[in-house]
Amino acid sequence: MRKINKLLVANRGEISLRIMRTAKEMGIKTVAVYSEADRNAPHVKFADEAVCLGPPPSNQSYLLADKIIDACKSLNVDAVHPGYGFLSENATFAKKVTDAGIIFVGPSPESIEVMGSKLAAKNAVAKYGIPMVPGTEEAITDIQAAKLKAEEIGYPILIKASAGGGGKGMRIVKYEAEFEEQMQRAISEALSAFGDGAVFIEKYITSPRHIEIQVLGDVHGNIVYLFERECSVQRRHQKVIEEAPSAVVSPEMRKAMGEAAVQVARACNYYGAGTVEFIVDENLNFYFLEMNTRLQVEHPVTEMITGKDLVKEQILIAEGRPLSFKQGDLIINGHALEIRVYAEDPKNNFLPDIGNLMTYIRPQGPGIRVDDGFEQGMDIPIFYDPMIAKLITHDETREKSIQRMIRAIDDYQITGIETTLGFCRFVLEHEAFTSGNFDTKFVEKYFSPEKLEVQWDEEELALMASLAVDIFEKEKTNLKRVTGQNRNGMPRTNWKNRLI
Amino acid sequence: MRKINKLLVANRGEISLRIMRTAKEMGIKTVAVYSEADRNAPHVKFADEAVCLGPPPSNQSYLLADKIIDACKSLNVDAVHPGYGFLSENATFAKKVTDAGIIFVGPSPESIEVMGSKLAAKNAVAKYGIPMVPGTEEAITDIQAAKLKAEEIGYPILIKASAGGGGKGMRIVKYEAEFEEQMQRAISEALSAFGDGAVFIEKYITSPRHIEIQVLGDVHGNIVYLFERECSVQRRHQKVIEEAPSAVVSPEMRKAMGEAAVQVARACNYYGAGTVEFIVDENLNFYFLEMNTRLQVEHPVTEMITGKDLVKEQILIAEGRPLSFKQGDLIINGHALEIRVYAEDPKNNFLPDIGNLMTYIRPQGPGIRVDDGFEQGMDIPIFYDPMIAKLITHDETREKSIQRMIRAIDDYQITGIETTLGFCRFVLEHEAFTSGNFDTKFVEKYFSPEKLEVQWDEEELALMASLAVDIFEKEKTNLKRVTGQNRNGMPRTNWKNRLI
Repeated sequence: MRKINKLLVANRGEISLRIMRTAKEMGIKTVAVYSEADRNAPHVKFADEAVCLGPPPSNQSYLLADKIIDACKSLNVDAVHPGYGFLSENATFAKKVTDAGIIFVGPSPESIEVMGSKLAAKNAVAKYGIPMVPGTEEAITDIQAAKLKAEEIGYPILIKASAGGGGKGMRIVKYEAEFEEQMQRAISEALSAFGDGAVFIEKYITSPRHIEIQVLGDVHGNIVYLFERECSVQRRHQKVIEEAPSAVVSPEMRKAMGEAAVQVARACNYYGAGTVEFIVDENLNFYFLEMNTRLQVEHPVTEMITGKDLVKEQILIAEGRPLSFKQGDLIINGHALEIRVYAEDPKNNFLPDIGNLMTYIRPQGPGIRVDDGFEQGMDIPIFYDPMIAKLITHDETREKSIQRMIRAIDDYQITGIETTLGFCRFVLEHEAFTSGNFDTKFVEKYFSPEKLEVQWDEEELALMASLAVDIFEKEKTNLKRVTGQNRNGMPRTNWKNRLI
Repeated sequence: MRKINKLLVANRGEISLRIMRTAKEMGIKTVAVYSEADRNAPHVKFADEAVCLGPPPSNQSYLLADKIIDACKSLNVDAVHPGYGFLSENATFAKKVTDAGIIFVGPSPESIEVMGSKLAAKNAVAKYGIPMVPGTEEAITDIQAAKLKAEEIGYPILIKASAGGGGKGMRIVKYEAEFEEQMQRAISEALSAFGDGAVFIEKYITSPRHIEIQVLGDVHGNIVYLFERECSVQRRHQKVIEEAPSAVVSPEMRKAMGEAAVQVARACNYYGAGTVEFIVDENLNFYFLEMNTRLQVEHPVTEMITGKDLVKEQILIAEGRPLSFKQGDLIINGHALEIRVYAEDPKNNFLPDIGNLMTYIRPQGPGIRVDDGFEQGMDIPIFYDPMIAKLITHDETREKSIQRMIRAIDDYQITGIETTLGFCRFVLEHEAFTSGNFDTKFVEKYFSPEKLEVQWDEEELALMASLAVDIFEKEKTNLKRVTGQNRNGMPRTNWKNRLI
């Protein structure tokens, strides 16, 4: 047991702030790191001390492991929290930190390494009977043997080149009759592309859902699961809406997935907070995908339903303490949603929309949490992930949590850049989402940019025009005072205000 | 059952916003009212429609019952929520609203009336065996009879003039030996002051705590209690820190108080949200004080520990729906604290400190909620209660909730006016508060203005001076950009930032 008195957060933005808030509540001094682009960022102001690492981009600042460790030494830092991204799943960094006599708030370098390789992870969990997507275990070139295996697995089947990547040599086979022809094509494609005709076959999941299990383990071998998060709504293979619990996971399935996740963690002697990702098919069979050996972006939804502060637990585990609760102590309380508010233009293929946060007023009220790293007037830096904030809601039921989120989205005032707020609102109101009947293909199935265009009818337009004139006439004497005095008082988009 | 489609909130500030947020989540249109002093207030901007009632003070605007009812009629409003204060416990207003065919979101005018009079309330609950502070039921002048009664009650005893008020003719008797003398003095004081020598005697509670029970009742006769709130920390007889649950209430005491509160509500055929206030003595005996027939300022702490949105429940009850849960469904989840952030100067006898909110940045993070009605740059109006915000924290235990609150207080950035933030921090760190061993006399016992003075030692002062020079040298090139571009980027008081 070794008490942490000073913690350096090797990260930036919202997650740096979020970690330091908990540290402060635990009476731990905090050290921020920053790049020259982040000199005036809130995470720098929040910390007790701050160290400039260098200019952007990240390989000249946030990724400089040795410089971070030097800063720890000169500031008498006891522990480093890596956040997510950057150095968070870098086994070499974890080892260097530990070798320098500093506590790494995360799992062992060995656990990071094993779970960092899909093949090593698969081998590690093999003996624990964790369900995997059915398929061949070794590469094959014998078409008849492959066909027998395909029958055993059941169609549709995915053929993947052993040496492949980027979709090359990949083919979906829906019916047995197509199998031989598609297999021959895949082999010849693989041969010509990679010079290696070996292929794998595995079950093709037509309607995949992404459901993950949060685990916590201590250095004494206790491991518990904190239920699931569903993260199936994605754009460009990145999560945009997450929730806990999932709309489709029954108590029995939750227990089975939770216990499987604990086994995965056990397979690599895991301690700290980790996430075991599963792919779930339309019949609600679940298969192990991979394990993330760090805090996830979407961890707040788990915090809302369990009442546990995951960062606090990470720090206590890093100090060597045993978990203060058992599996049976954990219960699900209500339903939580998280949306990621990105500086992106959903009408322009979700491309980043960098600029100045001219207006930035957060929603407030019961059951609402905003984790962000910006203040009004700041520029969104071009060098980093364009996530502005995570907006989290919690309420008694999924339906109420969705209603609360829609209200919060409407109250979030951001001008100066395009955001994904309107896109998230579209998803939350869509029948596929509200019914729970959706998968990772939600965006390609249901979304198109024109869905975000507001349709006014003629009557509304006429009313709006006449109101605009009225409001202008009544308000013009106040205009100077308002704009001169109060930046937050700028006219809202809600034009229906002040009817009288 | 009558669905509410449009709700007028007959109030201002944080409570108006808080009510409208829930209405919006329920798909109900909102109408704000405002005085000329509140023209640019957030509650006006938030509403779908807004009606100006007239100039300040309140008797020319927020208290104009008829004008509010006229606005309801012309805007097709279905229901009025009175908030707290103003018209919220005015039986005449509730009756006028109902007579106009509009739903009053609150109890019946009869319930308001009965509980609005201490004597009527006492009579109403008499037959239910609710514990009352022991004392004489009728005024007495016979000293020997009074002495017998005093012995029965037990010392210390409080003697109060029957016609009295303002402390005149009030005497505390600690020992039997003093009784006759003090009684004679009280009678003659009462005679000379009021021309009436009749006095009451009752038990004097040496170390009183203020603990109240939240109840919810529907129009079908179902009544439940949502546990207690402790509000013993007060200044000038006004609550400043509230919490749920109380540090001293056991499960048995909670059940007894809860059931007593339900009986009080039943005694006046109560429906809606209400609060039954008790005084608790040093032996944890509790005595009925009064019932508040409205939403309380401190209702959020109950929401945090029960997961129930009290405003949502009020609206559902007003629509005529039966409660959707039973007593046995309610559990306490963690611990919540609320502090009231006032624009007051604790170093100057808590006198209001009116001015401009030059900096106003709210704390954020897990388990933190801010209910307020201001934005940065706004003036605090002189006409109303100087409460800026309610800061609420929730965590697993009382200790963690206190740590979270202290962190949140430190992160709350308010400049331009004095606030009670530092005072609240003083209370939260005081051993009497952390141990739970406190009463309504906390402030007079433990607080003095110099407690808020920061004591620097010589070493700290020297370090501060040298740092100030360093920071200035490094930052002076940035100064223009920061101050010109970003109002929220103004230098923080945390001078320890950016050591390197």
